[in-house]
This record gives sequence, C-alpha cells and structure tokens, in this order.
Amino acid sequence: MTYCVGIKLNAGLVFLSDSRTNAGVDHISTFRKMIVYERAGDRFMVLLSAGNLSISQSVREILQVEQLKEGEGSEPITIWNARSMFDAARVLGQAVRRVYDRDAESLKYAGVEFNVSLIFGGQIKGEGMRLFHVYSAGNFIEATSETPYFQIGESKYGKPVLDRVITPDTPLDEAAKCALVSMDSTMKSNLSVGPPLDLVVYEVNRFQSDKLVSIDMANPYYRMLHSSWGQKLREVFDSLDDPVWDDAHTETPLKVTDGQNKPLRKITRAEEKLI
Amino acid sequence: MTYCVGIKLNAGLVFLSDSRTNAGVDHISTFRKMIVYERAGDRFMVLLSAGNLSISQSVREILQVEQLKEGEGSEPITIWNARSMFDAARVLGQAVRRVYDRDAESLKYAGVEFNVSLIFGGQIKGEGMRLFHVYSAGNFIEATSETPYFQIGESKYGKPVLDRVITPDTPLDEAAKCALVSMDSTMKSNLSVGPPLDLVVYEVNRFQSDKLVSIDMANPYYRMLHSSWGQKLREVFDSLDDPVWDDAHTETPLKVTDGQNKPLRKITRAEEKLI
Repeated sequence: MTYCVGIKLNAGLVFLSDSRTNAGVDHISTFRKMIVYERAGDRFMVLLSAGNLSISQSVREILQVEQLKEGEGSEPITIWNARSMFDAARVLGQAVRRVYDRDAESLKYAGVEFNVSLIFGGQIKGEGMRLFHVYSAGNFIEATSETPYFQIGESKYGKPVLDRVITPDTPLDEAAKCALVSMDSTMKSNLSVGPPLDLVVYEVNRFQSDKLVSIDMANPYYRMLHSSWGQKLREVFDSLDDPVWDDAHTETPLKVTDGQNKPLRKITRAEEKLI
Repeated sequence: MTYCVGIKLNAGLVFLSDSRTNAGVDHISTFRKMIVYERAGDRFMVLLSAGNLSISQSVREILQVEQLKEGEGSEPITIWNARSMFDAARVLGQAVRRVYDRDAESLKYAGVEFNVSLIFGGQIKGEGMRLFHVYSAGNFIEATSETPYFQIGESKYGKPVLDRVITPDTPLDEAAKCALVSMDSTMKSNLSVGPPLDLVVYEVNRFQSDKLVSIDMANPYYRMLHSSWGQKLREVFDSLDDPVWDDAHTETPLKVTDGQNKPLRKITRAEEKLI
C-alpha cells in the first residue's frame, strides 16, 4: 500500500513518503509517491499521493499542465501562477476530476474503485504556508494548528507517536525525526509499506529547499533510529512495573460462567501492594 | 468500535477487551465484549467479540445452548462437554451460522453487512491451551508459536508494541502489561475505543482463573502505565539525535521540479557529522 505524512509547523513543513506499491503481495514494486514543485524564491510545493497508482500518476502528469479557467478575460490558473496555495489546491482538485472523467467509468466496469488520496502543501510568495488533504472527489480540507498533520495510506500504525509529539511549536528536525519513527512503526507492522523513504524539510519563507533526501535501509541515521527506538522502547517497557494482583475481590462481578457470576480482583502497583 | 486482543503464551493466556460501542459518534455506549466460561478443574474458556453488537450478543446467547450433532447415537457436542477447544470452536462457529441464518437476510435489506469477529481461547482438561480467531462465516484459524496473538476491531494502532514484545516465552504479567500498553496507544488515537477495560489472565493447566479485573481510568496501575508510558516514550524520543543534514549532494536526483531534477542531500548522525 502506502504511508505518507505531511506536517505543518510554525517553523516550516515536513513531508515523508514510503515507496512500496503492491497489487497483492505477489506484485510488489517501488514507485516514488513524492513530487516537489519549486520555483526558487517564488513558490515551493510538495505533493504526496496514495491510492490507485494509475490514478495518482495521471494526476501528477496532468497537474503540470492543468489550467483552471475563471470566466472570460481572466488568465487561467495553474500551479505555477496561482497566487495562493488554496488556488493551487483547486487546480489539483480539478486534475483529479479530469482523471475521474477519463477513467472512472472504465475502472468501474473492471470492478476497481476510483481511489486516490493526496497531501499537498507548501508556500507561495505573498502568503503563509498551507497544507491540504485532497480526496478522490477533488474536494479538500486544510490543516490547522489543532490538526497540524495529515496522513494518507496505512496511517494507523504510525499515528500514536505523532499524536504524542507533534504540535505547531515542534522544531523542524524533531518533526522529521518523529515522521521517521512513525514510518518505522508502520513498516514494522505492515509489509505493504517499505523503503526507500523520501523526506523533504521546508523552512518557512524560504520558497525553496535543498533539504531533500532519499533514505534506504543502509542510511546510518535511519539505522540508528530504527535500532535505538526499538531497543529503548523495549527498555522503557521493561522499566514499567508488571501488574500486581490484589487478593481482595471487588463487589462487581464479571460475566456469567456456567450460570454463575465471576468475582473480580484488582491489579495494583508493586509499591502499593507492599503498603 | 472495539479493540480486543488475545495472547497465547507458554505460561498461559491473556485476554483484554475495551467496552465502547458506537453507532456513529452520536450513539456511544458501554457494552462488555468479554465473557468467561469456566467449570473449575475441567475447562476455562474466554470469548471476545467485535463487530455488529446485535450479532455478537445473539452469538453469546446461543452459544450457551448450542449443540453440534454428529450423526446418530453420538451425544451432541456443547461448549460444556466438548473434549477439545477445537470442538468448542466448532460449536461457536455453528452459533455464528445460526445467527447468520436468522438475521443476515434482514440485515442485508437494511443495508447492514453481517459482520462479527471473535477471539475464543482457553483450555479443556486433556489437552493444551488453544486460541482461535472466528470469522463471520463461522470458520476459524488457530494461533501458533509464530503468531501467538490475535486482535479484533481497531487493531492497527496497538499492533507495533505487540510485535516488539510478545513471544511465546513472554511471562504472563508482562504480556498483560503489553496488552494494556497496546490498548492505551489505541485509545489515544481512536475515540471509538474506550474504558472500562476487561482483563483476564489464565495460567496453564489451572482450568480456572480468578485473575479477572475490570479496569477504569481511576485504576492506579492503569494510570501509572498511561502516564509513565507516555512520558518515558517522550523521553526516549527526545534522547534520539535529530537528523543532521550533510552539505554534500548525492548523484541521484529526486523528482522533477519545474522541469528540472532536484539534487538530494544526505542526513546523518551528529557524531558522524563531526568526523
């Protein structure tokens, strides 16, 4: 499948994507799911895609030339002349709808759902950074300070660590580290997400970035993260008390068992047990 | 929704379930998803259920009286006289099919899928412990030493920690702790899973257990686990180096950007950067 995450912080933006694609476990291949649109000093935008690969590739292709026409006389809007990320996201939404008009019916005949999910974020000169989640219908939502990140694809395994760490005040490199830990947990539990990983870090008001990296499993930083996180997580787990069973029984019984109710006990902490 | 986990270890069995049920976020209620079947000294069995509540409740009701008839003359098999957990699981599978025959068509008219997922495990005198995952069709699979646990419901958030910790050699109380951490991560990221939690720990060859507990958020052990795990997880995260960006660029560029390819950099570890 896919796992991608986009994070919007006060300090900038972080984008991370895996690159495994599978049509069933017997057809696994590597496709990049990240594309960067940059005109240095003017605009910096990143697109992450999940869902049906033929759809997302078509969307990426079309997006380069897609034009949003706003009535007579006005110049058509493209991602390269859009004055706001909102307009650029509208162009992307129209690109999705164009692919829908072209392919959806044939896909339906083949029993394939029109399924694509996109994270699109960046900054255009004249406004602040913005981050959008674009759906199969071409509609989209925008990240806020309460919801500073979006995930697409296999998002559940890696969500708890994001929920614990990410706030708008999180520094950029710390957020990048968090995204990589989130990806590491996902790859540990889901075969359909895999390397290499593409990471981009954008600093606010730079309108360009050279913090782009493609990470394979030989990458020393990722190797450190993978082994240290796993090992220290285990140490933390071991450092927590096991539950201690209290001998007393509570009044509220649990469940029937052969007609009878079963009395409950309590679990408590070692030190409290000693008291 | 629901999150339940059943774990089979050399030392015994661990079962944990939440108790939140929701039909949409505006209709959330508390239903226990665990039931214990015990005849002390003879058999100890635990059933965890996820999916459509009307189905799982009917299955639980019917299971008490369900009889598996094996040709003329032979005594009908129930969960109370079954000679093996495998036979008991077959009785459970038949109970599921009975509810299917009764309700599936009407549910279909109402646009509701016949959806139930069950974890059923325990030990019957004369054989070892066994753990099964029973599906909506009444078919089932059994846990092995390579796959020592089953999850039903919202399983993804809590899977990474199980994958990191659980092996057949894991001690019982440590496995109970792991199940609770897995539940804690799930509740942190998914509103549809909630307290109170029902936990049962069974020691091999006891054919009974009084290690049953119902855990609410006031439980001192769970409170410790919740706060310590979150805090120490954060400490571990902070203890890992942030990525350091190498100034050199690699040869393999990433993605087109306004027609051009974008050179990549490397990320590395602080100490290596210093070399």
